[in-house]
Amino acid sequence: MSDMSFKITAQSATSRARTAELHVAHGTVVTPAFMPCASRGVVRACGSEDVAASGVQILVSNAYHLYLQPGMEVVEACGGLHRFMSWHGPVLTDSGGFQVFSLAGPKDIAEEGVTFRSPVDGNKILFTPELAVEIQNRLGSDVAMPLDECCPYPAERDYVQHSLERTLRWAERCQAAHGRDDQALFGIVQGGCYPDLRELSAAETARLDFPGYAIGGLSVGESREEMLEALRAAMSALPAEAPVHLMGVGTPLDIVDCAAEGVDLFDCVLPTRNARHGSVMTWAGPLRILNATYATDPRPLEEGCDCPCCRGLSRAYLRHLFKAKEPLAWRLLSLHNLRFYTDLMRRVREAIAADRLNDLRGHLSAWTQRDRS
Amino acid sequence: MSDMSFKITAQSATSRARTAELHVAHGTVVTPAFMPCASRGVVRACGSEDVAASGVQILVSNAYHLYLQPGMEVVEACGGLHRFMSWHGPVLTDSGGFQVFSLAGPKDIAEEGVTFRSPVDGNKILFTPELAVEIQNRLGSDVAMPLDECCPYPAERDYVQHSLERTLRWAERCQAAHGRDDQALFGIVQGGCYPDLRELSAAETARLDFPGYAIGGLSVGESREEMLEALRAAMSALPAEAPVHLMGVGTPLDIVDCAAEGVDLFDCVLPTRNARHGSVMTWAGPLRILNATYATDPRPLEEGCDCPCCRGLSRAYLRHLFKAKEPLAWRLLSLHNLRFYTDLMRRVREAIAADRLNDLRGHLSAWTQRDRS
Repeated sequence: MSDMSFKITAQSATSRARTAELHVAHGTVVTPAFMPCASRGVVRACGSEDVAASGVQILVSNAYHLYLQPGMEVVEACGGLHRFMSWHGPVLTDSGGFQVFSLAGPKDIAEEGVTFRSPVDGNKILFTPELAVEIQNRLGSDVAMPLDECCPYPAERDYVQHSLERTLRWAERCQAAHGRDDQALFGIVQGGCYPDLRELSAAETARLDFPGYAIGGLSVGESREEMLEALRAAMSALPAEAPVHLMGVGTPLDIVDCAAEGVDLFDCVLPTRNARHGSVMTWAGPLRILNATYATDPRPLEEGCDCPCCRGLSRAYLRHLFKAKEPLAWRLLSLHNLRFYTDLMRRVREAIAADRLNDLRGHLSAWTQRDRS
Repeated sequence: MSDMSFKITAQSATSRARTAELHVAHGTVVTPAFMPCASRGVVRACGSEDVAASGVQILVSNAYHLYLQPGMEVVEACGGLHRFMSWHGPVLTDSGGFQVFSLAGPKDIAEEGVTFRSPVDGNKILFTPELAVEIQNRLGSDVAMPLDECCPYPAERDYVQHSLERTLRWAERCQAAHGRDDQALFGIVQGGCYPDLRELSAAETARLDFPGYAIGGLSVGESREEMLEALRAAMSALPAEAPVHLMGVGTPLDIVDCAAEGVDLFDCVLPTRNARHGSVMTWAGPLRILNATYATDPRPLEEGCDCPCCRGLSRAYLRHLFKAKEPLAWRLLSLHNLRFYTDLMRRVREAIAADRLNDLRGHLSAWTQRDRS
């Protein structure tokens, strides 16, 4: 049993939306919360102090990436992932299932696990459920994930069913291998875009009685409607008292809509990756910093924002840095976008407590397109 | 006349070394001081807040770079260089003479100025002494430099003499064009590695009665002994009561040796460029972060250092970031090296005040090689 606890603090009367407190070994996360990606033990271009100052409560890191480089032994020798990266709050680690299937090259999927070659040194790796758990145990994250198969989109129904059943067997093996009380092991729901398979996967995963659940394999190319339908099907079969993490989602609008379905935790590369591509998030919608309009614009990215960008730096300066391919630009724009997201999540929580999530949705009209650039 | 003032606070009894206070429009610099390069309006990979926190007192920026991108009009429209980059302390700008001669492609040098094509947009540019001054006036730096020709090494004596005489005529034109009381225009001494030409250039530049002097064209490939000989020749003909800036120098040992010759201001890309190449400066000598020795080393770069790297991050983590080509690594290692330099300069000032510069030199024995990597 894990020491984790989850306390619902407000429940919408009109939807599944709720606010809650998730207590894990390294602290408390008020939810719904957004978890920036620190896959390699760093939020790209940003230091841990910066990220904490942006109001971020919890990070997502990745067993696959850290296993490849620098190796779990290195992180363990440095006192675990928190000390390694000097991040003192909670960390959730993904097993790397998604990365094994999407990033590693040719692979052989068998009941035992997935075999592929390391993109770092070319060595053959057999990634098993037990290995995924061992890595995360040794990293010492607060929340760990079992190894799962993330099906591509679109995928044949038979393949998806076959895959989700294997993912269930892997989940049981992960439970058997897991043995750290200060780390919660979540279950992962798969099932592609087939609502009945989503419901099946959720029900069978819930039967394994995890302290929390993740919903994987969405936001991989399906339409917004397909995503929401699959999400609803999964949610219908998950216990209401457990926290739910929707993996890899999403845009500001996705977050509001999925919070309305009862999702508690989100993670996505969007705010930091967009920043590195010069796409800035504001309440008036996306702002492309390279746009010539900003060449002499002395205004901050967003009036009233307290991020390190908006405290004293102009759009003109940020545009200049970005044009000059200055690493500082990636850092500053990333911190702005993270601040936008932490602010968004605060507004989501306030809206849920006041049962006005629809009003907040209206304020995001500039974000109606799914800008994943 | 400029509002600048320079007050010598300690004078070595055994050498020309001195400590002083340089008062300029945006504050006071205690000297000898090191000025990190912010050529494009940013200390590469570091924010202005970071740099100030490292103890840096004054930055060097560059008229050539900012003229090309984003353009002086942009910086002026944003309230001048200090506001543009949110740096509230003193800034010295180089005219860009060195950059025109070393970075721009094929060029045509005439009495009027230097013609070359912009590396940014291919447009033909005639860079004149008057333009160099206009750019710096509009940037609003605290100290400006006249346009000079920096001769390559080695160069024929006749060419060097011809060149330094033109640089003197350009200096007069710069004085005539300059008209900002809150900005000091320094003179620049050239003369290659010919001690008598250095002395001639220094004496003739001093006759123009600048409030301060820069010594340019050294550390361009000549030996350490040639550099020191040329420096001594120049210093012998400069007024003792004016501040002296040795441009583009140097290593820790260069700084101690040149401070002993009476140099007050230094600038060099070394600490930040070395950092981006993984070369870390410590009192025990250079440390190559990629060295396999550090793979599991939980120690900070330097015990007792208070930079953002050494406060809580291990060599193993920094090595991991650097291997992963993380922009954060460039920032953190740059800030460490800047902290090393500000600490070095403090020790230089204390050693001068105690007339023990030679003892400090002994502590730098690990730095006897001129590591310019």
